[in-house]
Order: sequence, then C-alpha cells, then structure tokens
Amino acid sequence: MKDTMKALETLRVLSVEQVHKAKSGHPGIALGAAPLIYTLYTKIMNVFPGDDRWVNRDRFVMAAGHGSALLYSILHLSGFGIMISDLKNFRQLGSITPGHPERGDTPGVDSTSGPLGQGIAIGTGMAIAEEYLRGRFNKEGLPLIDHYTYVLCGDGDLQEGVTQEAMSLAGHLRLSRLIVLYDSNDIQLDGPVKDTTGEDVAGKYRAMGWNHILVSDGENISEIEKAVIKAKASDRPTIIEIKTVIGVGSSLAGSHKSHGSPLPAEDVKKMRAALGGEHFEVSREVYDYFRRAVYERGREKYRDWEKIKTDYQKEFPEEFALFESIIKDEFTIDFEEIIPVSADDAKATREYGGAVIDAVGKIHAGLIGGSADLSSSTKIKGPDGSFGEGNRTGRNINFGVREHVMGAISNGLALHGLRPVCGTFFVFSDYMKPAIRMSALMSLPVIYVFTHDSVAVGEDGPTHQPVEQLTMLRSVPNLTTFRPADGYETKLAFRYAFENKNAPTAIVLTRQAVPNVAPGVAFSSFGKGGYVLAYEEKTIDGILMASGSEVQLALQAKRELLARGFDVRVASIPSLDLFARQEREYQNSVLPENATARVAIEMGEGAHWHKFIGPSGILINIDRFGASAPGKQLIESYGFTVNHIVEAFIRAVNKKS
Amino acid sequence: MKDTMKALETLRVLSVEQVHKAKSGHPGIALGAAPLIYTLYTKIMNVFPGDDRWVNRDRFVMAAGHGSALLYSILHLSGFGIMISDLKNFRQLGSITPGHPERGDTPGVDSTSGPLGQGIAIGTGMAIAEEYLRGRFNKEGLPLIDHYTYVLCGDGDLQEGVTQEAMSLAGHLRLSRLIVLYDSNDIQLDGPVKDTTGEDVAGKYRAMGWNHILVSDGENISEIEKAVIKAKASDRPTIIEIKTVIGVGSSLAGSHKSHGSPLPAEDVKKMRAALGGEHFEVSREVYDYFRRAVYERGREKYRDWEKIKTDYQKEFPEEFALFESIIKDEFTIDFEEIIPVSADDAKATREYGGAVIDAVGKIHAGLIGGSADLSSSTKIKGPDGSFGEGNRTGRNINFGVREHVMGAISNGLALHGLRPVCGTFFVFSDYMKPAIRMSALMSLPVIYVFTHDSVAVGEDGPTHQPVEQLTMLRSVPNLTTFRPADGYETKLAFRYAFENKNAPTAIVLTRQAVPNVAPGVAFSSFGKGGYVLAYEEKTIDGILMASGSEVQLALQAKRELLARGFDVRVASIPSLDLFARQEREYQNSVLPENATARVAIEMGEGAHWHKFIGPSGILINIDRFGASAPGKQLIESYGFTVNHIVEAFIRAVNKKS
Repeated sequence: MKDTMKALETLRVLSVEQVHKAKSGHPGIALGAAPLIYTLYTKIMNVFPGDDRWVNRDRFVMAAGHGSALLYSILHLSGFGIMISDLKNFRQLGSITPGHPERGDTPGVDSTSGPLGQGIAIGTGMAIAEEYLRGRFNKEGLPLIDHYTYVLCGDGDLQEGVTQEAMSLAGHLRLSRLIVLYDSNDIQLDGPVKDTTGEDVAGKYRAMGWNHILVSDGENISEIEKAVIKAKASDRPTIIEIKTVIGVGSSLAGSHKSHGSPLPAEDVKKMRAALGGEHFEVSREVYDYFRRAVYERGREKYRDWEKIKTDYQKEFPEEFALFESIIKDEFTIDFEEIIPVSADDAKATREYGGAVIDAVGKIHAGLIGGSADLSSSTKIKGPDGSFGEGNRTGRNINFGVREHVMGAISNGLALHGLRPVCGTFFVFSDYMKPAIRMSALMSLPVIYVFTHDSVAVGEDGPTHQPVEQLTMLRSVPNLTTFRPADGYETKLAFRYAFENKNAPTAIVLTRQAVPNVAPGVAFSSFGKGGYVLAYEEKTIDGILMASGSEVQLALQAKRELLARGFDVRVASIPSLDLFARQEREYQNSVLPENATARVAIEMGEGAHWHKFIGPSGILINIDRFGASAPGKQLIESYGFTVNHIVEAFIRAVNKKS
Repeated sequence: MKDTMKALETLRVLSVEQVHKAKSGHPGIALGAAPLIYTLYTKIMNVFPGDDRWVNRDRFVMAAGHGSALLYSILHLSGFGIMISDLKNFRQLGSITPGHPERGDTPGVDSTSGPLGQGIAIGTGMAIAEEYLRGRFNKEGLPLIDHYTYVLCGDGDLQEGVTQEAMSLAGHLRLSRLIVLYDSNDIQLDGPVKDTTGEDVAGKYRAMGWNHILVSDGENISEIEKAVIKAKASDRPTIIEIKTVIGVGSSLAGSHKSHGSPLPAEDVKKMRAALGGEHFEVSREVYDYFRRAVYERGREKYRDWEKIKTDYQKEFPEEFALFESIIKDEFTIDFEEIIPVSADDAKATREYGGAVIDAVGKIHAGLIGGSADLSSSTKIKGPDGSFGEGNRTGRNINFGVREHVMGAISNGLALHGLRPVCGTFFVFSDYMKPAIRMSALMSLPVIYVFTHDSVAVGEDGPTHQPVEQLTMLRSVPNLTTFRPADGYETKLAFRYAFENKNAPTAIVLTRQAVPNVAPGVAFSSFGKGGYVLAYEEKTIDGILMASGSEVQLALQAKRELLARGFDVRVASIPSLDLFARQEREYQNSVLPENATARVAIEMGEGAHWHKFIGPSGILINIDRFGASAPGKQLIESYGFTVNHIVEAFIRAVNKKS
C-alpha cells in the first residue's frame, strides 16, 4: 500500500473502530468523507498541533458533526492532544471524544457542531472575523491575520434554512476565504436525496454569489486538492461539491443504513485486515506521514507567522496591543460614565441600549454586529460603517431579515475572538433559539439585545408581542437574561454582559418610555440578578417583585398600599435566572422568608416566578396571546394597573392568614 | 378618472387613511403593492365574499402581513364582512382589523401573518393540501377541488431561511398552483435591499425548480395579469417579481421612511383630494366596480362549483362523504383498540407513537405529514406512500432536514382542513418554535411529535439532548404538551390530540424502552393533564410527581419509601400545562394540600413544577446541558436513581417539619 493510501485507510479504519467499540456513532460519513478531511489536513490547512489556539490558523468547522469520529482520527494522527485511549473512549462519559464535536472538550476542535445548519453559518462568522482583522491590522509585508475558513458539510446541512441565510449573506459579502466542502453522497437518513430535493446545485449557488466546483470522484485526492487551490484563488466564497459514496468500502456502501449505526462487525474486521495490525493500531510509517504532512508543515507556517508577529509588534506596537486586546477581550470601559442617565428622563430602555452600544463601540475594537433589518427600531448597530466588500473594517453587519443566522454568525465571530452584539424584536428570538442554545453550549460571550419586550408593543398585535419568550430564555442553561427596569439598570445589564466573558447574555428592552426609577442601584447587587429597590418603612407586610417596565408599577403600588396601611418592600429582579443561581442566604435577604405575602408582576408567561412567590403568592402575568391595540390600553386591559396590583396584594395577605 | 384607476386609487387611499387614523401602521407597502392585490382580487382569484369559507376558493396569504391595511381595504371593497367602521377601527382593541392579519378575526383572511417567512411556507402547505384533495377526489368533469394558492411577499420574506426551505421543497414537489407575487421594491427597513442581498433572483429560483417572471412596472395592471395567467399555466410554482415603488404617490416614495409609520398628514390629504370625497368615503361607482369584479364574478364561480358539488354528491356519495369528513375532521377512531399495549411490554414510547399514527392514517383520510429526515427514528410517517410529483395522494411528506418549514407547512395543511402530524428529535423543536407559535396563535390542530425526549438520548451528546425544551413548549399559550409515561399514556395522548380540534398538541416521546406502568389509566383523568397513578396505602406522607420515563422511577421509589416507613402517593403528570389549567379543586384532589412533602422528578429544566411542589418541595431536574455517554449511565450520573429520589423525599419531609 502506498503511504498516502495507507494514511487515508488508517484514518477510515480508526474511525469505524471508534464507532464499533462505542457501539454507537456514524460510520457512513467517516468512510465517505475521509478523503475530504484528509486532503484538508495533510495538504491544505495551516494548523499547528503544538498550538491549537494559534490565532492565525486556518479554521475548520465539521458542520456534519456526526462525522466526529473522523475528525478525532485525523486530529489524533496529526498530533493534536488526542490519544488512542481517547479514541477508544469515544462517546463515553467524561471523554474528550464526545458523540458530536464539542468546543472546549477536545484539542483542535474549533466549534461545536451537530445540529445541522449551524456549521456553515458559524464558518461565515469566522470568515467575517478574519476579513475584519485582516482589513484592520495587516501591514505591507506583515500579514498578521491571513487564513481561510473551511467547512465540511453534507446534504442535510444545505437543506436547513439557516444555511441558506448564511450562504446568501456570505455570497453578498464576498467572503472569498470561506470554502465549503460539500460531501455530496446522494443519501440522507430517510432515503435518496432526490426524494426531497431537486435543485441545480451549481446554478443555485452561483446565483447566490458563490463559486461552485464539482469534483466527480471523491476518492481522487489530487482533484480535491486542485479544487481547493482553485477555491482559494476565487474572489467569491466557494462550495466544492464532491461526489462521495456513504459507507464506501463497507458492505453497506451507498446505503443510508451506514449512516447512524455501527457497521456489521465483519466489515470492521475486514477493513482492519486489509490495513494490517490490531484494532486501533497505527503503523509507525503512518504516524510519520502525518507528522510530516500536518505537524511539520504546520510548524513551519507557525514559525513564519511568529516572525511576522515579532516584527509587527516591534514596528507597530500600539496596533499590536490593540490586536491583543481584541483577542483577549480586554478593554477598560467605565459603565458609570459611559452614557448619561438622569432621574428626570423617561426614555425607552432600547434608547439606552443603543447609546451604550454606540459608546462601547468607540472603545472596544472587537465589538461587531448589528440587527436583522430592524436597526432603527432596536437601535443596535455596529460602529465604523457597514461591513461589506468595499469596507472590511466596518463593524456594522446588515444581517437582513435573517434572525437565525444573525445568532449563528455571532457564534462564529465570538469563536474567532470578537465581541458580537445582535438585535431584533424580542418575539423573533424564537427564530434564533437554536443559535442561542449554541452560544450557551459553547460558552460564547454573544450579547443578544431584544427590544419590544412585551404586549406594550401595542398595535402590531399578537404576532409581534412576546409572551412566553422570557420563560424560553430563562430556561436555557448557561445563558443570563436581563429585563432591566430603566436606564440605570440597562447600563448595568450591559456592564454585566461585557464582563461576562465566558457565556452569552440576553438583554430585553422596552419599546415604550419608562421612568428612571433606580438611580441608586449598585452593580454589586444588580449583578446578583435581583435586589431590594425600595425597603419597607418599618415592618415588612409583604413583597412586590417585578422586572422591566413593571417595576415602576410596583413602586406606585407600594405607595398606594402604604396609604392603605400595608408596608411592603419592592424587589427589582432584572434577571430571575441569575437571582435563582445565588446562594439561598442572599435570596432570603432580598425576599425575607417571613414575608410570605408576595406578588410578582411581569408582562409575560412568568413560570420561573413560582419558585419565589410561594403558596400564598400571586403572579400577575400574561398567559395568553396579546392583541392589537394601543400599548397603554392593552397594558391596562391585561391587568397591569396599580389598582389590580394593590388588590392582588391584599388577596395574598388574606390567603396567608 | 377611469373606473379601474379610481378603484385602485380608492384602495390606496383607504389604506393610508386607516394608518393615518390609527396613527400606526405601514403605508409604504399599501401604496406600492396595491396594484398586485388589486389584480389578484378583481381579475384573477375565485373568491366569493358571500361564503368566505368556501372550500374551493383560491387561497391568499398576505405573507407581508404588515400590509394588513391594504388587505382590509380590498376585502371591504369586495364585499367581505368588513365595514368602513372597521377600517376606522384599524389596530384598535377588539377590532376585526388588527395590526397584522389574524385568522379568525376577520372575514376573508385565510391566514395569520406578520412574522416574516411564515407566509410562503403556509402557502406551500395549502398548495400541498389542494394537490392532495384534487388528486384524491376529482372525477372526470367534476373538479371538486380545483384552485390556486397566491402569496404576496416582500424582500424580507425571501431572506428568511424558512422561506428558502419552503421554496426548495415547493420546487421539488412541483407545486405548480402555488404562485408568489413578489413585491420587489428594492427597499427594506435598514436601507436598500442591495445592502444585504445581491442574488440573481431569476437564476436562483429557476435553479430551485421555480418559474420566474419579471414584471418591470408594478403599476401596469395588465402586465401583472398576464404574468399571473402565464404562471397558472406553468408546470412549476412561479415567483412573479414585480418591481414596485414603496410609498408610491406620497412624498416618501422610494424611501424606507414610508415603511412603518404613518405618512405626513399632508400626503394623506393630497391623495384624498386627488381622489375626491371625504376621508373613508367610497364612491358608488367604485363599490359597483368591485361588486362586479369580485363579488359577482366570484358568485358565478361559486355557483358553478355548487353544481359540481351537487352532481358529485349524487354520483359519488361515499367519496363525497369522505371528503366532508376530512374537511370537518370527523372520523371515528377507537383509541382503546387502535394498537395493542400490554403490561408486559417494555418499548420506547416512540414505537407506540409510530404505531398509532400508522393506524390512524388508515382510518383518517385527512391525516398527512411526516418527519424532517428522521422517520426511521421518530417513527412518524404519513400513509399511502410519499407525496410527490408522481403521487399526489401519498400522504407522507419527505420534509428533508427542514424542521422549521415542516411546522409552517403543517399550519398551511391545517388551514386547508387537513390533519397534519410531523416529527423530529425533541431538541430540534427549537428550530420550529416560530411555527409552533403560529399553530397556537391560529388555533390549528397540528400534532407535533417529538422523540428522543431527554438526556437519555445518550451518546449523541448535548447538542442532541433536550433540557429546556419542555419548559419552552409549556410556556406557549394554547398549546398542550404531553410527555406520556408509557404505551397506555401514549395512546391517550394521541387520543387527546385527535380530539383537540382547535389547538395544537405536542407529544414528547422516549427513544429508550420504558415499562408499561399505567394499564388502568382512564382518559377522563389523563385528559386533565395529571392524575393519581398509585395511591398511598393508608395515610398520605407525601407525593412523588413525574412525567414520562421518570414515572417508573417514582413508582419504584414509592415501594422503597414504603419499606422505610413512608406512605406516598405517585401522581403521573403527562401534561403539566393542561393540569395547570384545571380547577383548583381537581388539582387538590390529585395533590392534597396537606401533603406538603413533595418531590417532582423530570429530566428537564422543569420550571413549571415549582407551581406545584411548594416551599417544602424538591425538584429533581436537569438545569445544565447534557453529555455524551451511554444513556443509562448518564441518567444515573444526573441523579435519576431510586436512591436519590428516596433521599430527596426524606429531605422534603424534614424541611416540612
């Protein structure tokens, strides 16, 4: 067997052996797409296993995340920190080789993947980040950032809407360094691809501003290599459609049966026999081959780059420092001073949100983002003009009406070290849920700004009025969701978000003006998710709790209740999920256990309040859809009035006794 | 002014007057797209205002739902039950003219719209329904169903991923009676369309199997009409790209400023002056014109059809009865007998789900649907082969990996009177959230089947393991979500879903086998969302509550607790949201108030349990992401063991005292 051939076959056999040992996994793609990943790692990509966080490495996203075993095999062979024992531990508890690639778990894995559609979108975000950093920092002869982004995808990926959003935008933005290898095997889980799609692939993607190259034989390494070289020279993003055979070399070749279950044991045995050696054995010559083809080739590139970096740092120390600040996300921002907020003002919190982002954008050179065609409403726009073919340093992204990919691209931007912020109407967070989940799963500091936060949206009606969305976001692990009461709290919510460097933050803002009710709020208490905004006068009779625009109502109700002889406390809970994560002791300090008459007020479904209102408590919420009417009228018709709150509190007092 | 011209201008002026009076709305599209809707209603569409539920009417979806004022104007002028007083009440509380079209609120409105992307997808569902009914029922000379589906969309719609999913599928399925009028005005909210999209529209959609026709002057009614006539004759779905000017005729013509706020008062005044009459006045001749062009033309078609119907009924009484059963959703299904479930069996609930759908499909001729490329895993497949160009009576839809449009198409199918069922992995319900919300908002009886319901999914890892999705679904108003414990409960969940004819139902099923623990469950108690599965022996010491695969654990824990001297009750709560909607009295009968030691057990985030566990209660849930490992191991490592439940219960008892 030729070295190349043996290397490729080892890659395949190691992959199916992982699946076989785990009794779980996806052998079909591991066999069919092996030449694709093999070509990328051994001939094309500049990566250096000695430093898998190298900022100028080529990026690789295994969009078809079910091909994880194949990825782990090549990472192992290439000398990334994955051992044979890890491959043997494929899909086991605590292993670094989980069922789908998980960013952070495994050296050399640039992104989590698995949910189809996310991969190309993440790659699009990475490619935008590369263009921005290259455009902003590179100097004549000193290409500090100068790499490509590769994505390996399958048929399923291309069917997902979010992929189509990504490709539409990538074509428009001429992201010529984004190269997609399309593992085109004509088979998907439910049968032949032609049962569900009949597109002219080349025609479609060319019409969308992409370059399309067909490689008709997926076993032909040199054709694949030639295609990638051609793609690199193109002035457009490229999709290389490579015809492969799923499960090739096994008895299930060409069948969807090879997709999601281990191959027959006999197949694995035969393939290993043809290669020689024991299960999970890799010959010295194959290791040597990969060492030369990936590790040493990469090390050379890495050293070239280190020299560039050193020269750059010497010649352009300030710019280099800025570059480092971006990558490390280190900027000093004084959130006390960043924008003026006055107790006399009554603005929509979205106005403060927009002002904060404008101000931070001037300081934080890694800030990038925009809105899904609603920037005039959300007020969220990136600085320095719009990113495009002619302006690579513009940090506003015109996402178009493409909410889902806005989130997914933000993930890609964050994976590349930038600080993404994105905005749309709160009700359309529904469209972004899969991407929000990916931010949380990957611990990426994406800032989601959602405006038009309740039925107070008014006339646009129920399709535009969020009801259940706060509950949705609060239930996502590792995501922090704020609904600030006013300008002061809004500033602090953004402070929290910018200081929260290893997890996403959602900030939910009003369309309508609200009074500034929390002039004295300190970050130390705000940052715990909830705090006492107004203490009882003497002896606590109960508690009113609220978030966002309902906090002012709680304060008014407190005054009215006092006049009626009830001495209540008002707790502002801008982040119910963050508050729920505090120690019980702190929670009790805000909501004393003896104060059992409790009313929570929120214009949303509000499931999470039940944890804190207790059996005598009353939740004033909205658990049906909204309606089309002027906002103020609607708010009242849904029971958000001082009177109603006062009555509810008195009911709660009576329930208690 | 010519009659035609005056009619068209009246349409425009009435529309901007609505927006002007409401001080809220979207005048830009109302002016720009008026000729499009005018052409459809007066020259093309067969609708009859005298019976707006006419089953064979042409369907119209205003995908660009912000053009609602324009739609209401033409419905008024055409004689649908919308009065001038209704137009004056545009966007007011309780009006039948809400900010975006809401199905059910307004005569002549075929679908709710507003969230971009849903419209073309819904139209795709309607077109599939039409093809199916036509294919199944029409006889030589007796075309019982024989109509077209029209969608009016804007630039934003085409940018949404779900639209791209719909168009990809519609092209593949050759839905030649789906005709999209694309209001192409080169402007969107954040600026020129070219800032965010640079596609070759004709090339793209032709490559996707569509016919593309360009009308370069959107004011040219006869060109628009010709294009639609051509589209009707095509063997493919057609997108007619019509170049219009947003806000045409106003001082903001061509500007995005005309999009979302009322026009300057002066503009409205001038436009009315040019037309003549007072605000909201319609001249007799214009009413007459519309009466002839829409009402009388429609009545003729309607009468023709009534004759066909009568003849059909006479000649094919059985088939006609079946047709009526479909439209009325009236089928007798004995859910007791529908599939065998035995107490000795231990199967995954998805197996029962698949078997029920297979069985119902044989009885219910309106059942249609399928899975998003996961039918072998979800077991959800429609009957009679796959719907396609060559098989219009196949009721399995190969949706491909297009979850979002699967939901949106289901909405279109339901709007046309069919009974859609669709399936995917539970974690991918995230991708479908906007469509699920639309089902609930429109009160459509879509059945969502989600399998692989928890971390028990195992090796595929966190990207494939739902955690927060139950909370997400439970928070959606008007949606009922079941997570049945076993085969018996699964049958009843489907019974509930099929009897629930005016709202969607989600049924969440396991991948792994579970024992059949509820042989005696009665629909009368199951249908209340929760019930006592196992009573205490003598005196109640507390309650274990659970849903789905955790119910068996609760039963085991009950036995163990009894051995340790605690006499507990087990409540199975297959639908926490349905249970929460019951009278307090029923809730107390299941969960007696004196039994305050409560443990709820669910492999999910579980926010909604807090309402029922009370202050001494303990929630055994999962509030972090899953992991990749064999399912059984994972379940134990997340604390779902009999021991852990027993310990928690004893803690709850101690907390109480």
